[in-house]
This record gives sequence, C-alpha cells and structure tokens, in this order.
Amino acid sequence: MSHPSIDLAPVDAGRLRVELQAFARIGYSADGSINRLAFTRPDLRARQVLMHRLRSLGLAPRVDAFGNVFGRLPGARDPELSPVLIGSHLDTVPGGGRFDGSAGVVAALEVAAVLRERGPVLGRAVEIVSFACEESSRFGRATLGSGLVAGTWDPGEVLTLRDARGVTLGQVLARLGLNPDRLADVRRNPGDYTAYLELHIEQGRVLEESGSRLGVVEAIAAPTRLRVDIAGRADHSGATPMPLRRDALAGAAEVILAVERIGRRASGVVATVGVIRAEPNAMNVVPGRVELGIDIRSTDPTRKAEVAAAVQQEIAAIAQARSLQSIPHVLSDEAPVTLDPRVVDVLERAAAARGVPAVRMASGAGHDAMQMARLCPAGMLLVPSRAGISHNREEWTPVPDIAAGTQVLLDAVLHVAEHGVR
Amino acid sequence: MSHPSIDLAPVDAGRLRVELQAFARIGYSADGSINRLAFTRPDLRARQVLMHRLRSLGLAPRVDAFGNVFGRLPGARDPELSPVLIGSHLDTVPGGGRFDGSAGVVAALEVAAVLRERGPVLGRAVEIVSFACEESSRFGRATLGSGLVAGTWDPGEVLTLRDARGVTLGQVLARLGLNPDRLADVRRNPGDYTAYLELHIEQGRVLEESGSRLGVVEAIAAPTRLRVDIAGRADHSGATPMPLRRDALAGAAEVILAVERIGRRASGVVATVGVIRAEPNAMNVVPGRVELGIDIRSTDPTRKAEVAAAVQQEIAAIAQARSLQSIPHVLSDEAPVTLDPRVVDVLERAAAARGVPAVRMASGAGHDAMQMARLCPAGMLLVPSRAGISHNREEWTPVPDIAAGTQVLLDAVLHVAEHGVR
Repeated sequence: MSHPSIDLAPVDAGRLRVELQAFARIGYSADGSINRLAFTRPDLRARQVLMHRLRSLGLAPRVDAFGNVFGRLPGARDPELSPVLIGSHLDTVPGGGRFDGSAGVVAALEVAAVLRERGPVLGRAVEIVSFACEESSRFGRATLGSGLVAGTWDPGEVLTLRDARGVTLGQVLARLGLNPDRLADVRRNPGDYTAYLELHIEQGRVLEESGSRLGVVEAIAAPTRLRVDIAGRADHSGATPMPLRRDALAGAAEVILAVERIGRRASGVVATVGVIRAEPNAMNVVPGRVELGIDIRSTDPTRKAEVAAAVQQEIAAIAQARSLQSIPHVLSDEAPVTLDPRVVDVLERAAAARGVPAVRMASGAGHDAMQMARLCPAGMLLVPSRAGISHNREEWTPVPDIAAGTQVLLDAVLHVAEHGVR
Repeated sequence: MSHPSIDLAPVDAGRLRVELQAFARIGYSADGSINRLAFTRPDLRARQVLMHRLRSLGLAPRVDAFGNVFGRLPGARDPELSPVLIGSHLDTVPGGGRFDGSAGVVAALEVAAVLRERGPVLGRAVEIVSFACEESSRFGRATLGSGLVAGTWDPGEVLTLRDARGVTLGQVLARLGLNPDRLADVRRNPGDYTAYLELHIEQGRVLEESGSRLGVVEAIAAPTRLRVDIAGRADHSGATPMPLRRDALAGAAEVILAVERIGRRASGVVATVGVIRAEPNAMNVVPGRVELGIDIRSTDPTRKAEVAAAVQQEIAAIAQARSLQSIPHVLSDEAPVTLDPRVVDVLERAAAARGVPAVRMASGAGHDAMQMARLCPAGMLLVPSRAGISHNREEWTPVPDIAAGTQVLLDAVLHVAEHGVR
C-alpha cells in the first residue's frame, strides 16, 4: 500500500471560511443560532445555495425524490468505475450551530474546487452529496436521506412519519415539489459507489482532551433507548411520614445513579438518563409517577446489550425494594456500525503524510456514514468541537482544524479515486 | 376540669351526608373532581349556598371585605363574652375532592343545627365561618382569608398578588363587588374570639395506619421551601465518555436521595423533593441543568432548621465532588404553630367521652387554624382520609367518621361556650 499522494495543491482555508460563513447566514437567528430544520424554507435555501455552488464548479446538480442533492465532478478516465462519494448534510436541529453537517458539505465542496483546479482527471469520478433530513428533530428519526439511499428505511413507511404539527413527510415532500411517489428510486445498489467519505465535527471532547486535531472513525456507536415509567403513590408532602411513602422520584434517583454506575464500569459503553418527567411535580406532593429516558451507546453490540440488561435488572430491583412499579419500554435498539478498515487505513496514512496529529476513535454520535456503510466501504474524519459543544449556537471548530481535515479528506479521495479502496 | 357534656341530641349523620352532597354538586366536573378555585363562579356559588343555609338556621350571614362568610348563632346568655368560632373553607384546588374544607364547613353547620334544635341558650355565642381562598392554587399563597382576619398578611400587599392570568387579587375583589378599599377592616383583634375550632380531613395516612378515627392536632407543621439550581455541562450523550461528564441530573439524583435520607433520619421532620425540571431534557444530551424543589416540614422549628441546614450542606458537598454548580434559594421559611394545649385537652376529653378512638398528632398540612392560633386559642380535629389521598377526585372520608368528628366538635363547642377554654 502506498501513502496517498500529497504532491498536490493544498486546500484553501480562506475559501473554506468564506463558504462556511455563506451557509451560516442561512437560517441565522438573532441569538446566534442556526435554524434549518429539515424541509423548512431555510433548509431549502441552503440546498439551493449548494446547487448554485455545484453549478459554478461545473458539477451539474441532481436532486433525488427525497431532496438529497448530488453533484458529479466530470471527467473520470474510466466511466465504468463507480465514483467516490463525499459529503454530509445541511439541515440542523432547532437552535443549532454552524458546523454540524455544514463543515462536511463545505469540505466536500473544497475538495471539488481543488480537484477542478488541479486539472488531470482521476481514475474514478468524485461525487458530492448533501443528504436531506439527517437530524431527528423534525420527524423523530435521524439519517432519513442517507438511510433511503442505503435501503435501510421502507419508503412507504417513511412517508407516514409525522412532525410535531401532524404533517406527514409525504405531504411535506409533495408540497415542496419533490416526488413522494418515486421515493423508492432514491435507493442505490451495492457497488454503485467505490466508497463514501464524510468529514464531521466530533460533538464530544475526546479530541480536545487527547490533543489531537483529527479523529479517524473506526466504528459508529448506536443507541439502545429505554423509557421507564416508575409509579409510586402521590401523597401530601406534609401529611405523609417518611416511612409511609412510596416516592417515585426517590426511586428514579436510584435508577439514575445506577445507570451512571453501570455506564462507568462498562468499558466502551456510555449510559445516560437524559429525560425526566415527574408527576404531579408540585412542591407539596410526594411524586407519584416519574418517566425516565435512558440512552445506552457502544460500538460493541454485546457490551451494549449487557449494559442494557444490567440497567433493566437494576431498575427491577430498585422498584421491588421500594414497592414501586416499573415498566421499561425499549424504544429503539440499533446495531453499531464498523467502518471499513481499509478506508480507516487510507485516512490514517493521509493524516500521517500531512503531519496532522490524528487518533483512531469511535463516534458516539450517529451520522450518514453509518447508513452508507451498508452500501459501500465508508470512512469518517472528525474535527474537534470546542468544549465538545454541539447542537447549540456555541458550537465551534477553528477553520484551521477544518482545513487540516479537508486536506486529509482530499488526499484520501485522490488515493481512492485512483486506486480504489486498498 | 369536667368532661364536656355529652347529654345532648346527637349529630345527624344523614343530614351531614345530604349537606356534603349539596356542596359536592357545586363545581362538580364530569371526571368526578370538584373545581371551586378561589373567587371563581363555583366558589361564589358555594358561598351563596352556605349563606342560604345560615339564613335558614337563623344565623344572619355577614360577608367581610375579603369574602369570608360568618354567621352567628343568636341568643348567648352573656353578650359580653366573645364567641366561639368554628368552620373551615369552601374553595378547592383545581381537580380537587369533596371533603377538603367542605367537611369542616358542613360539620360547623351541623353543630349550629343541633344547637338550634337543642334550645337552651349557651353562655357564649357560636359563630360559623367559611374562610375565603384557603388554597394556594390561584394566588400562590395559602390561608389568605384567615391570615387577613388574624393580621398575618398586609392587606395592601395581598391586593397586588396575581393569578396565572396576571389579574390582581384587588381587581378580582372589585369585580365581585367586594371591597378591596376596606380590606384592612377584615382584621380582628385578640380577644374577639374565645376559641377557634376546625374539623378537617387528614390528607395523610397516619390515622388509617394507626386505626384511629380522629386526630387531635397538637401542632401544625410549616414548610421551609428551597429551590436548588444545579448546573453541569450539556454534552452529547453519545460522544462524551463517562469520565468527561458533568451530569447535572446525576448530581440531582444524589441530592434527591440525600434529602430522603436526612428526612428519614430526623425525627418529626419530613423532607420531600416534589419538583424536578431538567434541561434540555433530550434523549441524546447529558443534562446540563436541573432545578429541584425541596419541601421540609416539622412542628419543631429547631429540627426543621437543622434538616434544612443539613440538606444545604449535603447539596454543596455533592456539587463540589461532581464539579457542578449549585445555587440554593430559600423560597419560604414559615414558623410551625403550636395549638392551645387546653383546647387539645378539651377535644381529647370530648372524644374519650364519646368513645371515639382518637390520637394526638401533628398536622403536616397547613390550615386556617394555623392563622387563627395567632388570634385566639385554636384547636383542630382531623378525620381519616382513605389511603391518605387528597387534592384529588379520589379523596374520600366515610360519613360516619365525619359524623363522629362532628359529634366531638359539638361537645367541645358546648364545653367552651359554657366554660371558656379550660
């Protein structure tokens, strides 16, 4: 295996910054956050800007029936070879930041720009993509666009998903002039792409704490999500002596600490109680009911299942000891994804050749690459998130870090476009 | 000291039941709950029905500037002696039950009815009262009517209290044709009443668990209320390894269990976390902020202060150990009230003479008697609440228990009206 070639025009950090700023103006709110909820006007505007950029680079854009935007760099020497796909997404959570998704799309545009300037054609075509509806905020499910491309989701079922206002995704697509009737056509086949490469912000603090500038993702964790309903008895907080209580919140507190303890003890697993709702939630009433939302993630399905089982056992034991009722519901149980080790190697060697301090790591967050890994060899680069903050106006990644990551992405694209995944 | 006389016409349980049912029809909702929020139409209707009943018993009703309704049984032998006051309240929490407050007003009406039938006049006059706005549900403060009578509240400040719609209490009174300008006249002076006696449902399970039919209240607990804001860091639940977290909810869970532990250890104190709110309260985010509402009650002010201090110390220690910030706010810190021991004796002897199994106890809930104790010797009788449930359509007390309590109340009223508090 050779190192990916590095004898090339470097990426232009200034151009990257300008592009990032251009997208950050779309859906920008007075409080500094970005609001491009999937299929809203600002989200469409961002995709229109992308199509404009693709055109100006000579990459005639194509929009599929779900609104995924593609642009192919023409001029591959061998049109028989399947292209290399790079990109990410442009939709955001409500009150989101300017890097989650956008950084990867802008990096892909920069790669295309450098390749255009560079001149000599590559063995394989390079395609840019912005997947639609990566965030779960609107329809309660993440990576919808890439999941349709990869064949994960049933198109008919996807059309029935509803947003908070009760509008179905099918209605949304029809109103936007997209083509719900042709949603099945979005799906691509294995072999259609040589590889999928994505740059994304980390959304965590592993890089910051380790002093690395780049993460090469080996695996993407997937969540097992539980909702637990704990029922005790709502009693007057003044009139009910402590020994007569069946306090659902005190039981829930034990569950929260048990989830933390089990998560800490297990290696390579994180476990979080992110949601709590108590009833009646009044100062003068002992809580009678509590709902907890538990999120367990790992790249190792066995360990994840062990932790989920341990958590459920602990909940049952706590409930029994306190004479509470507990009913756990498994909301989702997704399989972790291992990325292609050959792609990991290519990315790692590209980073080493450029002298970018990189570390192999797992991604705790889910990404479009997780879907694309079902279809073709996939790889991911993570750039540092300041203080690990994301989904927030405070989200920040220095442009030099994005530029370093984009350089490694470019070098890897050149290698794969020339040599394939090896 | 003599036993209160028992050689009298007994109370009429059938009449009690009919009166209870009459009031339960006012503000009755389809779900079985009673909705007579203070100063709403159903609340006014209940007071109008009361005035009608008072008139039919020959007790010309009087309404003060705040809407407290009084009715005096005429014919005292010595008009120089101050009357004995008995009653409770008719307003309810939203979605309340048919006994909280009403049981005490109906018991007072039954006492008046028996006294009217009985004939021979008493040494002192007996006055019936229904205090306005005992529940805190509308204006965020409990026992408003009795507190104005007792001189606890500043009338000018009371007029500025606002309900959830932003309407001031002054506006509410004016709209109802009451007299906000004369609110200061509501206040009575020490010596105006020989005693205040109130029957109320327990709202707890002490009587049920002890097998008693009647509680004689020695002291009324008062709450110290804290709000604690706990701040950690909101991190991505997938992308943030356990050791890098500052989980505000895990810290809050330790606080909840510490409050329970301290409350269990302290004798005569109850401590409750009744309110919890987490931010952002999302499945995929480690909670960055949690707000807790803590309620600590005791009839012993020293022990209550010790528990509040221990809770605050524990919160600080938990926050420090977890690198969280915690800011406790003392929302209220009310003084417990000791009821008059002579009145307690009269009530206890009256119960013994009637063979009603009674137990001395503290009231964990606040009541109008707590205010009236500032003005005159006060006493309270508690009747059992099935399963301790109150502020709820499930609230239930068997009529025979209310009748037994009313009989003891009547006997005590006869004693005090004849002999004063001794």
